[in-house]
Amino acid sequence: MSAFPTAPDTHALERGSVLAPRFDANGLIAAVATHADTGEVLMFAWMNAEALQRTIETGEAHYFSRSRNELWHKGATSGQIQTVEEMRIDCDQDAVWIKVRPQGDGGACHVGFRSCFYRVVGADGTLKEQP
Amino acid sequence: MSAFPTAPDTHALERGSVLAPRFDANGLIAAVATHADTGEVLMFAWMNAEALQRTIETGEAHYFSRSRNELWHKGATSGQIQTVEEMRIDCDQDAVWIKVRPQGDGGACHVGFRSCFYRVVGADGTLKEQP
Repeated sequence: MSAFPTAPDTHALERGSVLAPRFDANGLIAAVATHADTGEVLMFAWMNAEALQRTIETGEAHYFSRSRNELWHKGATSGQIQTVEEMRIDCDQDAVWIKVRPQGDGGACHVGFRSCFYRVVGADGTLKEQP
Repeated sequence: MSAFPTAPDTHALERGSVLAPRFDANGLIAAVATHADTGEVLMFAWMNAEALQRTIETGEAHYFSRSRNELWHKGATSGQIQTVEEMRIDCDQDAVWIKVRPQGDGGACHVGFRSCFYRVVGADGTLKEQP
């Protein structure tokens, strides 16, 4: 179903110039979004082949919502569209890193914070919110 | 088996001060490591409860290797120990972000690059290595 090829060997996977994402058993790869200007990690989500393809084609982040089981154009309802500055893929091609600029109110998290990672884990395991 | 509690409701999960990680069906949560100084995303990996606990207790990144099916003290053999500067958890507590300082040769990737995300995905889907 995926329009993406499969790397023929480890060298092609790790050093090749062909995008050959390794989707998991559920057809997903991991996606980490950071803020293109601050470097802050904004969110962690998943992409299926369609989401990855659309992100590349449109320059706006698309994910796959596991809870809703559907393609998720981030910001389509919230206005928090993520314009993609750069996309990178990791050594074994099962994770992408996108540097984005959030539109709308500039946020990325449904709870209301700029980043989903708004809580620091203390040495004793307690969480503290960071504004 | 996990020493971590389960959040009783969504409010506790999202706004609570108790670490209540939501491990997946395989007992894992996602882990994103960035460089504490440069902000660069170094790697994406997984943690089980033991890896998470040890990372918190020791201040050195521990992951769970899915390929080897075992606890993975990053750098134990390569020397690329990751000293954890800060750990954050996301809104629904299924992903952690750790800011780390890689020891040894300063790298994080087995292929030899500083970061696993050494390839930029072009608009046409081709990959270009970035030194």
